Amino acid sequence: MTAYKDLSKEELLQIKSGLEAEYERFKSAGMKLDMSRGKPSTEQLNLSMGMMDVLNSGSDLVCKEGVDCRNYGVLDGIEEAKKLFADMMEVPSDNIIIFGNSSLNVMFDTVARSMTHGVMGSTPWCKLDKVKFLCPVPGYDRHFAITEYFGIEMINIPMTPDGPDMDLVEHYVNNDPAVKGIWCVPKYSNPQGITYSYETVHRFAKLKPAAEDFRIYWDNAYGIHHLYEDKQDYLLEIFQACKAEGNPHMVYKFASTSKISFPGSGISVIAASHSNLNDIRKQMRIQTIGHDKLNQLRHARYFKNIHGMVEHMKLHADIIRPKFDAVLTALDSELSGLEIGSWIAPRGGYFISFDAMEGCAKAIVAKAKEAGLSMTNAGATFPYGKDPRDSNIRIAPTYPTLDELKEAVKLFIICVKLVSIDKILETKE
Amino acid sequence: MTAYKDLSKEELLQIKSGLEAEYERFKSAGMKLDMSRGKPSTEQLNLSMGMMDVLNSGSDLVCKEGVDCRNYGVLDGIEEAKKLFADMMEVPSDNIIIFGNSSLNVMFDTVARSMTHGVMGSTPWCKLDKVKFLCPVPGYDRHFAITEYFGIEMINIPMTPDGPDMDLVEHYVNNDPAVKGIWCVPKYSNPQGITYSYETVHRFAKLKPAAEDFRIYWDNAYGIHHLYEDKQDYLLEIFQACKAEGNPHMVYKFASTSKISFPGSGISVIAASHSNLNDIRKQMRIQTIGHDKLNQLRHARYFKNIHGMVEHMKLHADIIRPKFDAVLTALDSELSGLEIGSWIAPRGGYFISFDAMEGCAKAIVAKAKEAGLSMTNAGATFPYGKDPRDSNIRIAPTYPTLDELKEAVKLFIICVKLVSIDKILETKE
Repeated sequence: MTAYKDLSKEELLQIKSGLEAEYERFKSAGMKLDMSRGKPSTEQLNLSMGMMDVLNSGSDLVCKEGVDCRNYGVLDGIEEAKKLFADMMEVPSDNIIIFGNSSLNVMFDTVARSMTHGVMGSTPWCKLDKVKFLCPVPGYDRHFAITEYFGIEMINIPMTPDGPDMDLVEHYVNNDPAVKGIWCVPKYSNPQGITYSYETVHRFAKLKPAAEDFRIYWDNAYGIHHLYEDKQDYLLEIFQACKAEGNPHMVYKFASTSKISFPGSGISVIAASHSNLNDIRKQMRIQTIGHDKLNQLRHARYFKNIHGMVEHMKLHADIIRPKFDAVLTALDSELSGLEIGSWIAPRGGYFISFDAMEGCAKAIVAKAKEAGLSMTNAGATFPYGKDPRDSNIRIAPTYPTLDELKEAVKLFIICVKLVSIDKILETKE
Repeated sequence: MTAYKDLSKEELLQIKSGLEAEYERFKSAGMKLDMSRGKPSTEQLNLSMGMMDVLNSGSDLVCKEGVDCRNYGVLDGIEEAKKLFADMMEVPSDNIIIFGNSSLNVMFDTVARSMTHGVMGSTPWCKLDKVKFLCPVPGYDRHFAITEYFGIEMINIPMTPDGPDMDLVEHYVNNDPAVKGIWCVPKYSNPQGITYSYETVHRFAKLKPAAEDFRIYWDNAYGIHHLYEDKQDYLLEIFQACKAEGNPHMVYKFASTSKISFPGSGISVIAASHSNLNDIRKQMRIQTIGHDKLNQLRHARYFKNIHGMVEHMKLHADIIRPKFDAVLTALDSELSGLEIGSWIAPRGGYFISFDAMEGCAKAIVAKAKEAGLSMTNAGATFPYGKDPRDSNIRIAPTYPTLDELKEAVKLFIICVKLVSIDKILETKE
C-alpha cells in the first residue's frame, strides 16, 4: 500500500469521500460501545463463578492461624492467602501484606502515608517544598491521577521497547533528591504491552538514589496475564534483584487479583522488605483492624495454589486472545504501509497502544465517540492528561464481545484514516 | 455491706488473706481468657451464616443500577445497599457513601484527607501549626490512636450521664479555630454505654464553630445494638438536627455492620451532606475504582431491609444480654456498698465501664492478667493511653462463653478488692 503522505490531494479526497460514506453508515447504525477501560468481559467473569460456592454456611471458616475468618483479627493477611500471593509475586510469604479489593487503594495509601509520615523515618513529603515522580509514558492514567492529587510534580520518561529510558531514569533518580518515586507497570505494560528487559530491571536494581526515601512503585498488574502459551514475556524479579544490588528497601511491588478473579471483589497485595512492611504496618494498625479475611479464604481455597491460578489464567487467555488477534489483524490489514499510525502486538496484558500521526489522537477519539464508540480519552496515558504529541490512543479490547469489537475496530480505523487524511491535506494546501 | 474505707486495718487484712487464697486458686487453675476487645462470640457469628449462602454460582449478580457486581464500576455503593444502610443511619439514601469492611478505615481516611487536602476547600491541616480534637473520656482507644498518629493534639472532655460536658465542648469549639473535630460514640458509648441526651445532641447541632472545617465525628457504632426490647435508649438524629440549626455540613456520621454481620467482612458507611460527600468523592475516585460490591449485594439481599436487620439484632441481644446481666449481677452483689468502684448498667452496646478507686486501674488489670485474664489496658480509654485518675477499666463481656465470663468476673472482682484494700491500707499506715 502507498503511504497516504505520498498520495496526491485528489487521491486523498477520493479516499476520504468513500470513508465518509462508511463513517455515516456506522453513525446511523447507532453503535453504543464503551471500550474506554480495561474491563474483563462477562464471559471472563463467569470463569470464576466457582468462587461463589467455595464458602457456604457449611464451610469451616477457620484459617491456618486458627482464627475464625468471620471475626476481627489477623491484620496483614491469612497464611494460606499469603502463600498463594507470595508465589504469584515471586517473593517469600513473609515479604507480603494482603489488603482489600483494590491495589490502586494500596498505592494511593502508600503515597498518602509518605505525604504525612514519610518513608521509614524520612521527612514527610508534605513538609518538603517539592516532590517529584518519574512517569514512564505512555502509562496508566490512575497512577498519574494519584501523584497529581497530592501535588507531586510528574516528569515524563519515554518508553522504549525495553522499558523506560533508563539513561533518563538514572539521571533523575541518582541526582535529584526531590525524585521520590517512579510508576512502573513492568510486564505487559499499560498501555503498550511492553515487558521491561533484563537489562532494564538490572539497571533499576542498581540505581543509587539521591533520596533515601526513593521507591520504585512496581505495579505488576499483569504478571500472569499472558495471551499465548507458547510465547510469553519473562520479567526479572525485581525484589531479589534490588536485594542483590544492596538496595533491599528500594521497591514496593503491587499486585491484585482484579483481572484474575473479580475486578470488584478481588484481593490486593504489596510485597516489600521487612523494614518497609513494618513501616506500613505502623500505619495499618491505626487504619484498620484488618481486611476481609473471608474473601482471602475464598481466593485461597478456590485457586488452591499458584498452579491453579496459572491454569485459570489460560482460560482467560483463551477468551481474550481472539479479541487481541482481531484488533491486530484489522490494524495490520487496513493500516500497514499507510504510515498514519503504529502499534505494538503485545503478548499479554489488557491493552493495545496505538500511535497516530502527531496531532491526531484527540480528533480520532472524538470522531469515534461521535459515532457511538467510547475510547480512553486521548492524553489519558500521560501525566496531567497531556500527550505532548497528541498521538497515543489506548485500545482496550477485552470487554466487548468479539463481534462488537470487530465493528468497533472497523469504525476506529475509519476514524484514523479520516483524521489522518485531513492532517495530511493541511500540509498539501 | 460496710465500705472498705470504714473497716479497720485488721479487718481489711483478714479479708485480704481470704481473697489472696481465692486469687491463688484462680491462678493455679490456669485460666487463659482474652476479654480485651469488643468481639462478637462464635455464637453471634453463627447468626449470620445464612449470609454465606445468599450469593452462589446460580445467583443473579446484577445490582439495581444494572451493573454486574463482579466487575468494576459504581464508585460509592450499589442502590440496594444504600437504601438498607440509609435506613439504618436514619438519613436519605443520597446522603451516604458505602465503603469497604472497616468504618475505622473510613475515619482514618477522613482525617488523612483533611491533613493533606483540607475539608471542603479549607487549608490542609498539615499546613497548620496546630490542630486539636476534643475527646470525650472515657472513649474509644482506636479513635484516639488515629488523632495521635497524625500529631493532632487531643483535649479530654469528661463524659456525664447525658454525654460529653457540653459547656466545655461549646467553649472549645466556639472559640478555638484550631479545634477541628470531636470524636463521639453517641449511642451506648464505648465504654460507658451512655446515650447522648436530646439536649446534648441539640447543643451539638447548635454549635457555632470557630473553624469552618470543624466536624463532629459521629461514630454511631452501636445504633441498633440494643440489649433489651422493652428498655432502649433513643438518640436524636444529628444530621437532620444540624441541618435544622443551619449547620448542614458539620457532621460526619459513621457506621458499619461489623457487629451486625461479620466483624471481618462487613460493610462500612459514611453519612453527610452532599457537599461533604462530593468532597469525599473527589478523593475516593483517585483512591479506588470501587469497593466490594458483591459483599454489598450479599448484605442487601440477606437483610432485605431495616426490619430484617432489626429482627437480626434481637437475636444478637438474646445472646449477649445474659452476659451483661451476669457481669452486672456479680458487680452488684459483690461490690455494692464497698465504695471501691462504680459502674453503669448499659442498655446496649458492647461494654461495661468500671471506675475503680483512683490509682487502682493499672494494678487491677495487671493482677487479672497475672492470673490469665487479659482485659483492655488500663488507660486505653483515654488519649495517649493516660487516664489521669488511673481509674477506668473497660469490661468487654461479649466474646467469652457465659461460663467463662462468670469465672472471669469472679477473678476480676477479687482483683478489684485486693488492689483496693492495698490502696486503703496505704492510707491507714
